[in-house]
Amino acid sequence: MATETLTAERILEVTEEVLRRYGPAKATVVDVARALGVSHGSVYRHFRTKAALREAVTHRWLGRTEQALEELTAAPGPAPGKLHDWLATLFEAKRHKAGDDPELFATYNVLIDESSDVVDQHLTVLEDQVRRILEEGVSTGEFAAPDPAASARAVFTATARFHDPSYAPTWESETAEEEFEQVVGLLLRGLRP
Amino acid sequence: MATETLTAERILEVTEEVLRRYGPAKATVVDVARALGVSHGSVYRHFRTKAALREAVTHRWLGRTEQALEELTAAPGPAPGKLHDWLATLFEAKRHKAGDDPELFATYNVLIDESSDVVDQHLTVLEDQVRRILEEGVSTGEFAAPDPAASARAVFTATARFHDPSYAPTWESETAEEEFEQVVGLLLRGLRP
Repeated sequence: MATETLTAERILEVTEEVLRRYGPAKATVVDVARALGVSHGSVYRHFRTKAALREAVTHRWLGRTEQALEELTAAPGPAPGKLHDWLATLFEAKRHKAGDDPELFATYNVLIDESSDVVDQHLTVLEDQVRRILEEGVSTGEFAAPDPAASARAVFTATARFHDPSYAPTWESETAEEEFEQVVGLLLRGLRP
Repeated sequence: MATETLTAERILEVTEEVLRRYGPAKATVVDVARALGVSHGSVYRHFRTKAALREAVTHRWLGRTEQALEELTAAPGPAPGKLHDWLATLFEAKRHKAGDDPELFATYNVLIDESSDVVDQHLTVLEDQVRRILEEGVSTGEFAAPDPAASARAVFTATARFHDPSYAPTWESETAEEEFEQVVGLLLRGLRP
């Protein structure tokens, strides 16, 4: 592959494949370069260290969910329904990631444990979206939240069971959906003026 | 030690000490018998298998928290305050177990992973206490909960961050107490009629 077509995005795509194939413990930058048919120096021109490459691929993975949720956040519509759908979409996205490709999910969970900054940034983006939905609801009189940022964090914390990867083994249980609705219903009632 | 003084409780006490000393991977019934100064047959007369002994010691450990919370549940007083205090006491008890004796806490987390029945039973006891507090609040008009058992489970799920051992590393964070109050405040508002 010619160097001019070697974009950061292309490196990240291939890195994901290499991580899936070799596992996060064994995958190296040399493996990525080999899979791309370039020298490892070419990879390092885009990502200065192996850690930076791993962080970037984790950021990209988490970013996909952020983007889908951002569209929901920015769309018009009543705030309570939007908050419900936002949480349902997050749960669904996580459940898909865990269920459709368990190996890749396990791989990313290893990466997540080593990239706390990337994860913190991800959680900040998500909590900020919830805050915006709450503020919207406060402005229309649909929600009462004296401190929307604190309430957003509380909503996010209270729904951890449905998005924290450590609960992934429970997501396919028969009662998961009903439990989700019960928790979200309780939170929505708690946000009523 | 004479066999007549060898009670199940005494065996469980010593088992906890042995588990702490050798770790859950290495501790054996022979170690327990040796620490008691009895034959391992004497231990097996009370607990028929090593698994039964480990389950019993886990049950005893979890039971201590259940007992403290049962007293709170049965005490008179307004339901919303009681639910707040019940959740705060659970959080405090777990935080103490994790912080005061981290080695023993880690040991029990290993045991918990192998004793899913004992843990399920524990969670059922706790959720049932919450259900009773909710029913009390419904009867006095302090709470609205069409299905108190489902709401109890939702309250328990939504506060996982403050009692699920997988979150233990976050319990000593500076913001944990404030986050707890935010989540519980939101849930209590959600339970208002």
